[in-house]
Amino acid sequence: MKTVKKFALVLSGCGVYDGAEIHEATLSMLAIDKAKCTYQCFAPDMEQYHVINHLNGEAMNEKRNVLVESARIARGNIKPLSQYKAHDFDGIIFPGGFGAAKNLSNLAFKGADCSIIEEVEQAIMSTYLAGKPIGALCIAPAIMAKVFQGASVTIGNDLSTIETIEKMGSIHEQKSYGEVAIDKQYKLVTTPCYMLKSSISQIEAGATRVVQSMLELM
Amino acid sequence: MKTVKKFALVLSGCGVYDGAEIHEATLSMLAIDKAKCTYQCFAPDMEQYHVINHLNGEAMNEKRNVLVESARIARGNIKPLSQYKAHDFDGIIFPGGFGAAKNLSNLAFKGADCSIIEEVEQAIMSTYLAGKPIGALCIAPAIMAKVFQGASVTIGNDLSTIETIEKMGSIHEQKSYGEVAIDKQYKLVTTPCYMLKSSISQIEAGATRVVQSMLELM
Repeated sequence: MKTVKKFALVLSGCGVYDGAEIHEATLSMLAIDKAKCTYQCFAPDMEQYHVINHLNGEAMNEKRNVLVESARIARGNIKPLSQYKAHDFDGIIFPGGFGAAKNLSNLAFKGADCSIIEEVEQAIMSTYLAGKPIGALCIAPAIMAKVFQGASVTIGNDLSTIETIEKMGSIHEQKSYGEVAIDKQYKLVTTPCYMLKSSISQIEAGATRVVQSMLELM
Repeated sequence: MKTVKKFALVLSGCGVYDGAEIHEATLSMLAIDKAKCTYQCFAPDMEQYHVINHLNGEAMNEKRNVLVESARIARGNIKPLSQYKAHDFDGIIFPGGFGAAKNLSNLAFKGADCSIIEEVEQAIMSTYLAGKPIGALCIAPAIMAKVFQGASVTIGNDLSTIETIEKMGSIHEQKSYGEVAIDKQYKLVTTPCYMLKSSISQIEAGATRVVQSMLELM
């Protein structure tokens, strides 16, 4: 009997400009479910860097919590990232959205000199040390480039982000819609998603390819 | 040359307990895009009935705007529902979530005696009068049951909601995962989605079936 593979999914809020990109998160869940695997969502229990009005792009005078807002995408079924244990899962996926660059790290403000929050770094390192694959979409591959200096990742073709990744000491592979970069040493699967001007079907293609490639690495 | 069909998608916030159900909204967009059609999101510019903490289910002491929060799902590409004109589109879809029953209407509180907000009623009636199909997912079919007293819809198999629909003077058809009820008189296509305990793949199947059935009615 084939064992059902279990994915962890790390969210960073709810909405592209200050949290997890909703389509990338939802379509990662869909790709996992269609592959007959299961998922459990996680998010750090911390205040968001800020709250952006997604209608006009302006900052709002509000405070929101990353875990509480991520629960919207997860329909309430989510745990604090501090409870993630690599040995309970077969792989972990980080969807994109500015939440990855503003909440999970300060990449959006510090570029190559950014720091990654401890819980996220720990989740990534423990998964790597357990020999399990890590998937990352959109801007989230830049977090992997920082953690694993020397990793090979893709964020599509955005020149300034590519420069940032190279400054971190990692390698950028240019990839197109629905394509993945696979780093076999770190068992790292990355795809550009909305870092390219994409249709929602192209996001689904990217998420599906990440899940399939991770399954092959398990 | 085949004309590209244009769908309007009416959101009611961002999150199952106080707004639009995120997976139903996202997978409606995916289904439309995969059918080589286009979509434009709309939402009423009004305060949400309330804000629910999706982690613990409790009401929060906050105010949020339906259009502004819906913009999170739409990645900013959304218009006030007051700007919707039936003649600009080939059909209109209402995803579910409690936003349909708390913001677009007061169904969650008034049941069969509920009222529908004017902009929503106008969008539905003008689409019907233009002879164009209307799709509704999850709890949103109950809004159609109220507007078109005598319509035939499905919300799955929830007994109390079925009773509400029948009290409104409409007819309930029991349907299962990914199935649709089609009312040819009103060109109304409805599906249960998360009104049944569903996997996310089953939500995709329901949304896809709604889009396909609407295309056949165009």
